[in-house]
Amino acid sequence: MHAYRSHTCAALTAANVGETVRLSGWVHRVRDHGGVLFIDLRDHFGVTQVLCDGDSAAFAELEKVRSEWCIRIDGTVKARADDLVNPKLPTGEIEVYVRDLEILGAADELPLMVFGDQEYPEETRLRYRYLDLRREAMQNNMTLRSDVVASMRRRMWDQKFREYQTPIITASSPEGARDFLVPSRQHPGKFYALPQAPQQFKQLIMVSGFDKYFQIAPCFRDEDPRADRSPTDFYQLDIEMSFVEQQDVFDTIQPVLTGVFEEFGGGRKVDQDWPQISYKDAALWYGSDKPDLRNPIKMQVVSDHFRGSGFAIFAKLLEQDGTEIRAIPAPKGGSRKFCDRMNAFAQKEGLPGMGYIFWRDQGEGMEAAGPLAKNIGPERTEAIRQQLGLGVGDAAFFLGGKPKAFEKVAGKARDVIGEELGLTEKDRFAFAWIVDFPIYEQDEETGAIDFEHNPFSMPQGGMEALQGNPLDVRGYQYDLACNGYELVSGAIRNHKPEIMLKAFELAGYGEDEVKSRFGALFNAFHYGAPPHGGCAAGIDRIVMLLADEANIREVMMFPMNQRAEDLMMDAPSDPTSDQLMELGLRTIPQD
Amino acid sequence: MHAYRSHTCAALTAANVGETVRLSGWVHRVRDHGGVLFIDLRDHFGVTQVLCDGDSAAFAELEKVRSEWCIRIDGTVKARADDLVNPKLPTGEIEVYVRDLEILGAADELPLMVFGDQEYPEETRLRYRYLDLRREAMQNNMTLRSDVVASMRRRMWDQKFREYQTPIITASSPEGARDFLVPSRQHPGKFYALPQAPQQFKQLIMVSGFDKYFQIAPCFRDEDPRADRSPTDFYQLDIEMSFVEQQDVFDTIQPVLTGVFEEFGGGRKVDQDWPQISYKDAALWYGSDKPDLRNPIKMQVVSDHFRGSGFAIFAKLLEQDGTEIRAIPAPKGGSRKFCDRMNAFAQKEGLPGMGYIFWRDQGEGMEAAGPLAKNIGPERTEAIRQQLGLGVGDAAFFLGGKPKAFEKVAGKARDVIGEELGLTEKDRFAFAWIVDFPIYEQDEETGAIDFEHNPFSMPQGGMEALQGNPLDVRGYQYDLACNGYELVSGAIRNHKPEIMLKAFELAGYGEDEVKSRFGALFNAFHYGAPPHGGCAAGIDRIVMLLADEANIREVMMFPMNQRAEDLMMDAPSDPTSDQLMELGLRTIPQD
Repeated sequence: MHAYRSHTCAALTAANVGETVRLSGWVHRVRDHGGVLFIDLRDHFGVTQVLCDGDSAAFAELEKVRSEWCIRIDGTVKARADDLVNPKLPTGEIEVYVRDLEILGAADELPLMVFGDQEYPEETRLRYRYLDLRREAMQNNMTLRSDVVASMRRRMWDQKFREYQTPIITASSPEGARDFLVPSRQHPGKFYALPQAPQQFKQLIMVSGFDKYFQIAPCFRDEDPRADRSPTDFYQLDIEMSFVEQQDVFDTIQPVLTGVFEEFGGGRKVDQDWPQISYKDAALWYGSDKPDLRNPIKMQVVSDHFRGSGFAIFAKLLEQDGTEIRAIPAPKGGSRKFCDRMNAFAQKEGLPGMGYIFWRDQGEGMEAAGPLAKNIGPERTEAIRQQLGLGVGDAAFFLGGKPKAFEKVAGKARDVIGEELGLTEKDRFAFAWIVDFPIYEQDEETGAIDFEHNPFSMPQGGMEALQGNPLDVRGYQYDLACNGYELVSGAIRNHKPEIMLKAFELAGYGEDEVKSRFGALFNAFHYGAPPHGGCAAGIDRIVMLLADEANIREVMMFPMNQRAEDLMMDAPSDPTSDQLMELGLRTIPQD
Repeated sequence: MHAYRSHTCAALTAANVGETVRLSGWVHRVRDHGGVLFIDLRDHFGVTQVLCDGDSAAFAELEKVRSEWCIRIDGTVKARADDLVNPKLPTGEIEVYVRDLEILGAADELPLMVFGDQEYPEETRLRYRYLDLRREAMQNNMTLRSDVVASMRRRMWDQKFREYQTPIITASSPEGARDFLVPSRQHPGKFYALPQAPQQFKQLIMVSGFDKYFQIAPCFRDEDPRADRSPTDFYQLDIEMSFVEQQDVFDTIQPVLTGVFEEFGGGRKVDQDWPQISYKDAALWYGSDKPDLRNPIKMQVVSDHFRGSGFAIFAKLLEQDGTEIRAIPAPKGGSRKFCDRMNAFAQKEGLPGMGYIFWRDQGEGMEAAGPLAKNIGPERTEAIRQQLGLGVGDAAFFLGGKPKAFEKVAGKARDVIGEELGLTEKDRFAFAWIVDFPIYEQDEETGAIDFEHNPFSMPQGGMEALQGNPLDVRGYQYDLACNGYELVSGAIRNHKPEIMLKAFELAGYGEDEVKSRFGALFNAFHYGAPPHGGCAAGIDRIVMLLADEANIREVMMFPMNQRAEDLMMDAPSDPTSDQLMELGLRTIPQD
């Protein structure tokens, strides 16, 4: 017989009754029923009930074991009595009578119980991660993550992509976040950097003629703490393709993601229709470039109804350039109580408030209620109602000003309204491509023009488009929104060195800066670069959505805490003076 | 029609004749046959011949293109005349008459030609890697590597392993090599390290109850230059399993590797029988712990034949403790010329020389020739011949002394003899498990005992074995040798904290040091650790063997040069003073 097991703890059924078996695993829990010891023996695969009484030679030894001891038992498989069968357990038909026992690994007193649902401080969980990971929820999250990544890989291969590994110890790649640096020993005083993303490398792979690249790629960013991201690194499904247009990239990634969400979504609905919404429309309709389309609410411009109306605040506002009034329709939100709560929400978010109208039937037909309706009169009120397609029991909220100033709050209000009114469908994954991102944005204070996103995207219209107003230039640049999160980001790249230079020039960067920041790419584009594009999908985020977890640390095996410390491994730590010497470094004492 | 291509450059056959097609790719070479331009248009998939004459509207434009320009053409597929069909090319039946042309990416003058076999200095190749990678051999090596890794993954999944990612920014893990350090910004003065291997993490994953782990894992070691290794990082197929013995690990990895070698070996023979050879026997028989078993030569101890013999050097040597005489049989090596050359080889390697005997037939029956035979006389000579199973036309070489002093040279001599005599079979992959490695070694000068390999292996015999002479302790520790290279290394781990402490104590490390160096693992072993073991296979090395390359840079997409510089990306480079400030570091000026 094998030294440790003839079966896993999930394998035995009624068919094994009478067999002599060997199992190894952890003591999940022990119960003493008056001289009979029952132990739930657990391994990665499942749980088997084993038991022992005074007639067994193993009894005295088995009495010693405690929770989370790792043991090996030999025993005989017995059928459980009919009334003791546990149909929820694959091994619920049987139990194993223990005849021999070996303690493989004893356990000290536990800082954290594996059995049960007790909550522990995150610090405890991370310090004793190897215990925390034994818990069922964590076992499930980790296997889910592993399975999701494998499924992505398989789906990419099925589409004739190959995975190529790009360097991890490399050059600084200024892409907006902070680099992690790695001092060089062979070149003291000089530093490598860990890649924020394999962006330049994957583009260079295209210039090298490889046509279809993907990688499950670790990305390193020295980020300040936030609950939903790791302070050090994350993984993305990184994709790049040559000789493609935007739609080719969409057609590649959509079946991969719908496939993954269907495979692991646990029956939740996965939208097959992925609308393409312009960045501009997304801002107008949803107040966000990563809208949650499970929420059917779509905002509308209603400026005309307020222009010159009796509602002086809006009427006056509209006399200024660039202002708008937008409505958030709220079907079934037609109560003063709800409207007041939403108004308070807007105030909490820093706005003066949200005007509202709601429609009710007081027995004498439909009536529009709320101060705003009185101010603008029944005709305008009715026109608004018709435009928004609302009726009795519904409400609408109104925000005015320069869109940039209230769009974000409008988006949040839309989320809350959808949520509170039960309009936002649960158990569904709703996707939308957000397209036509502007290439540039203007700093409101300085008026300076800078890249809105990343500098690698091809402007729509190419060189010609760069001759006009930079703020009008849209890129072949896109995000995928899912349930309010950005899951994917990508672009068709700017592969022409002269357009690249011009694009940087508009953002205030000279040729020298392009060469020093993106030299490899810029040089490579001088040797026959193909048109290419791609995207990157956030793996941690996808697993979080599938696992229904809000904290990234629940879907990582050995995460840092929010202070970027590994409590289990005790990192970061002090270097030795020899190490510093070899690297030609001195640390500056901190106060 | 698609903006860039209706077909790849490998797709068109006689079946497409008459069709209007669109192709994109690189100008592989241009020939001008008196007013007709022929271009080999190349993409990742293949080459298609396109042509154009003065009748085409595209002619003037096509005349401008040069090697490695990236272009898009529209044209008509034509059958080649029977005598112009190229059967070696998948597209050799056709050519495409160009009617329209778009230059997608022009190229400056090339520092390196893609077409042809010209050799370039490595510096040029690495600086313009994106051009170097377009060459057929590099395209093949990179796709081979990608395919090998995918095949390994598939085979691991087929065996019910899951891939789990372990941290890359983590704590220093003192495993014999130098760490790459990463300064922490949030904790100035403190440093993370990049993992030399996920050794501790994979063991912690076992303690966490995951049973079967693998990972295609990047490993980081700050190594001094050597041709066959990267100065910064390498990849391994990392495996760990719970509740296993040594043979279970062997049974897991053997089908994975034989499968990969058969799949990608190009018909070379892949041994299915993997002998298990003890470390001691390997040293004796092959003078190496990574023997090349394609070479049938097996050394033997022949001390008895020399003890008290007329060959005074060996006879005297044998009077000292711990000395031995070993023979390297050399079938078909029976000529004075060959024997003298081998003797010279040994002298070049720093030995006084190798004695030899060779057997010839001068028409009067077999005769043993060489000075050694004369000294020991015909009886002893014949006994040696019989022990070694040699005959006319064969030779044997002899080395004596303390085995440690000559084993390495003996192993080298065996390699050279096998090679020169054509005994070493080409086109074959021969594997052997080297087992029973000693846990400890003794420093010859100081007499100090230290770990021979890594400190994580379980001693055979457990705690009891640690009570005796440390140098007698063997570990459940193994390497896989293939064609003279170490492909895999692994062990059954020491998972018992008390045995771990004792093992370290013998090597001179106290409990404090164990805790500070391997604290996470040591702590984890106090909470019910399962018996576990595993191995790691060197992916770069495997791909090198399959691709028949001697330089690791031929199987990496973007390698560093031997000075640990990335010439394409310009790394390492100077940090900004802001970066140093944030990290709390100062660089020490170098002379």
